[in-house]
Amino acid sequence: MTEKIKEGDDVLFFLDNRRSYLIRVERDKIIHTHKGFIKINDVIGKEFGVHIKSSMGVDFVALKPSIKDYIFKVSRKTQIIYPKDIALIILFGNIKPGSLIVEAGTGAGALTIALANYVKPSGRVYSYEIRSEFLEIARKNLERAEVLEYVELKNKDITQGIDEENVDVIVLDMATPWLVVPHAYKALKGSGSFISFSPTIDQVVKTVEELKTEGFVNIEAIECLIRRMHVEKGKTRPETLMTGHTGYMVFARKSLKT
Amino acid sequence: MTEKIKEGDDVLFFLDNRRSYLIRVERDKIIHTHKGFIKINDVIGKEFGVHIKSSMGVDFVALKPSIKDYIFKVSRKTQIIYPKDIALIILFGNIKPGSLIVEAGTGAGALTIALANYVKPSGRVYSYEIRSEFLEIARKNLERAEVLEYVELKNKDITQGIDEENVDVIVLDMATPWLVVPHAYKALKGSGSFISFSPTIDQVVKTVEELKTEGFVNIEAIECLIRRMHVEKGKTRPETLMTGHTGYMVFARKSLKT
Amino acid sequence: MTEKIKEGDDVLFFLDNRRSYLIRVERDKIIHTHKGFIKINDVIGKEFGVHIKSSMGVDFVALKPSIKDYIFKVSRKTQIIYPKDIALIILFGNIKPGSLIVEAGTGAGALTIALANYVKPSGRVYSYEIRSEFLEIARKNLERAEVLEYVELKNKDITQGIDEENVDVIVLDMATPWLVVPHAYKALKGSGSFISFSPTIDQVVKTVEELKTEGFVNIEAIECLIRRMHVEKGKTRPETLMTGHTGYMVFARKSLKT
Amino acid sequence: MTEKIKEGDDVLFFLDNRRSYLIRVERDKIIHTHKGFIKINDVIGKEFGVHIKSSMGVDFVALKPSIKDYIFKVSRKTQIIYPKDIALIILFGNIKPGSLIVEAGTGAGALTIALANYVKPSGRVYSYEIRSEFLEIARKNLERAEVLEYVELKNKDITQGIDEENVDVIVLDMATPWLVVPHAYKALKGSGSFISFSPTIDQVVKTVEELKTEGFVNIEAIECLIRRMHVEKGKTRPETLMTGHTGYMVFARKSLKT
Repeated sequence: MTEKIKEGDDVLFFLDNRRSYLIRVERDKIIHTHKGFIKINDVIGKEFGVHIKSSMGVDFVALKPSIKDYIFKVSRKTQIIYPKDIALIILFGNIKPGSLIVEAGTGAGALTIALANYVKPSGRVYSYEIRSEFLEIARKNLERAEVLEYVELKNKDITQGIDEENVDVIVLDMATPWLVVPHAYKALKGSGSFISFSPTIDQVVKTVEELKTEGFVNIEAIECLIRRMHVEKGKTRPETLMTGHTGYMVFARKSLKT
Repeated sequence: MTEKIKEGDDVLFFLDNRRSYLIRVERDKIIHTHKGFIKINDVIGKEFGVHIKSSMGVDFVALKPSIKDYIFKVSRKTQIIYPKDIALIILFGNIKPGSLIVEAGTGAGALTIALANYVKPSGRVYSYEIRSEFLEIARKNLERAEVLEYVELKNKDITQGIDEENVDVIVLDMATPWLVVPHAYKALKGSGSFISFSPTIDQVVKTVEELKTEGFVNIEAIECLIRRMHVEKGKTRPETLMTGHTGYMVFARKSLKT
Repeated sequence: MTEKIKEGDDVLFFLDNRRSYLIRVERDKIIHTHKGFIKINDVIGKEFGVHIKSSMGVDFVALKPSIKDYIFKVSRKTQIIYPKDIALIILFGNIKPGSLIVEAGTGAGALTIALANYVKPSGRVYSYEIRSEFLEIARKNLERAEVLEYVELKNKDITQGIDEENVDVIVLDMATPWLVVPHAYKALKGSGSFISFSPTIDQVVKTVEELKTEGFVNIEAIECLIRRMHVEKGKTRPETLMTGHTGYMVFARKSLKT
Repeated sequence: MTEKIKEGDDVLFFLDNRRSYLIRVERDKIIHTHKGFIKINDVIGKEFGVHIKSSMGVDFVALKPSIKDYIFKVSRKTQIIYPKDIALIILFGNIKPGSLIVEAGTGAGALTIALANYVKPSGRVYSYEIRSEFLEIARKNLERAEVLEYVELKNKDITQGIDEENVDVIVLDMATPWLVVPHAYKALKGSGSFISFSPTIDQVVKTVEELKTEGFVNIEAIECLIRRMHVEKGKTRPETLMTGHTGYMVFARKSLKT
């Protein structure tokens, strides 16, 4: 059965690969873009994927937002972590439906949205953040992405300890992940996954040294580079501009102390 | 509650980042490694993450296998697609709990295992494969990874057509993805995701040209490079050897014909 | 003996890694920058490397321009080829003092400056360009970089043939290098080097296929990626922005027909 | 005039891009390869680039060795520095005919061969090495590459000081480049180039911090990645294996103290 666009839905008005607008559908709403305005009423009742013309006659497509669209929307404001890195965190961190996850810091919730999407319906994300103003932003973003029910937001300093036990995965996107390693060891199940994301090499070195000391195994530090291709018959080539670095990811698994 | 290793479980006997053994637990089983043998009875009833010595006194850790461990185990035999690429396919392809997915070709099931893990419990993967001998291998691998119930294996040529309708995502890892584009367009929901993975540039060009013709939007062709770091205080550096190329990924979304 | 700055010299007024000004020294000249103006008289008679303050009190260093500075100065206007690629062309192409080189097209002379610098004093560069307006720009740039005497600029279409014989190296930076391959074969010494630089994959494929047909050996197609590091104690990391692609280089050597 | 192969010449017997043999031509010499033997007499008097069959009927091409061939030949034994990095050191370091260069350590002379080739005929390389056994190897390699006359080999510890003055360029490929920075500052001309090559990030950080302290400007730390392409009509793709890291290069220029 095809899915019709209705009030309360989010729609991504797609112009091209660089420009799109994530909009909540409300009757009589008008969207202003630099390519003219769009009347929301024109898409209500239509199927997702429908083309629509702006007042300037420019073509938009009304797409159903993906997880990545929500991540980008949230990231644009705080720019902490990228979809490419989140993708690796999910799979390499063994995050899956039913997982019990501790995350810090929440930030605007970009990573939290992805984690929540992949642990549902039976899993749960406990997300620590010391800056209370961010928790409010994150709550709104999680609500919009329809995953708030799978998340518990905690206004706490994770370097002081972790409340949860028998956790499957711990994911850190914060300035001093090495301070959390002993708490993470305690909170994790045997064989559970530790993941940290850090922009600088020094953070990676400190975290890995601490993981070795605590008895983690299978410690791996990687970074991920995405190369975009310009594809056009007879003119195909990698794109000129490239993101050279976002951050390193450290993965490890808890082994039991002997 | 901690998880004890019991008969019928899979255990990953981890030696180091390059060497580990994925083993089904059976009473009285003996595992032979080039570092001596391991008696399975020694880990039964222990918690995952426990250390165990081989007959040569070498230390192994009995980890609970992750999705990535299953993918690697399966990939080792056919070497089609890598965890890094699967990770991006999952997130960038908007694959999530509940998704209805069509995949081709099944191969040994490496990608299928990951897809099934992320659509469960309510989603489903329809996986097409023309080579029946591969379907048998895939069935065993899916069973072992405990996701067979979310998959329907089909001994059919997907270039001849797709049986399913209103599909959320179509994922192709096969030699001629461009031949499937018109069928994919028909089978997908409006706004649904098309993904193909191909080693050569020519495959990418043909597929992208066909996607443009059929009315897909948000077409992106990327490749993913992973760089591993050797992390050691005072000696940190990227690793010398690197996988230079596995394949390109093409992502697109269906827009409705006007 | 230290080198003093004198009239007629070029000076690179260096502000930071992104901003510098290549200036011909003339008495009483004033340089206007967005960081205030600089009086040239202040550096005349001083040693290269001297610090000088602009009218706004901003610190500049009066460096002696390097080959790379001249290349960048020239490239800024036409953006054809990058120093990183030129560096590989020089060494991998076996260009050295005394080499006899044929080049096309000249463009603004960025690559020609480098080639001339490395063949001097006894070598020579024959540089073909069909667009006469570019030859005038190139002549000025070569004169300024003090290498014009090692270059012969030719207003000719190299796809129609090469006048020179027993050439050591042929370097092509033009849209259709494959059309020059048969002429290059004829003009080169046995064992001589063929090099082409092309942005697109299709150009590379056509050129390599033609090289195979003509009897070239040791054919290699590569691209070069430069990663810049932000180096600061405790904050070291690769830079965020990166040039993702400039072009591919094809190298080959002439074997004799049997 | 074509160049004939004669006794005393070096010839590179080229089999394919991975296998070739650098041989000194002597009458009646026989070369044993895993593809059969080659009689040197068969190429004497022939032009470089000639094809020759081994005793097993396998085709070899008798190429004139390039600078890169000599570097590879030398590097194979000690594996210190790669042609790609040497290429950037030459151009980005502003090394050119006539330059006065100080280098350390000599090692087997791979980098020294390249430096000498590019400063000749009027320039000179002073090369420091504390391990006298390496100096003997380097001397032989430089002699073979016909550049010994442009090099002065010095059995000295460069961390104790540099004898030369008004040097154009200092190039360091050694474990502790930061210890040489103050000596390098003293030995260099104003505006002269400092270059160091180091495998680890810690070496880079220490060297850059020292360069900042000493008053160097235009400090840049980069690394160079080469990607090889498999080029074949309809099957073109980047090669699977890639060298992920050799080392970082640091470039800087001396500014005068104020």
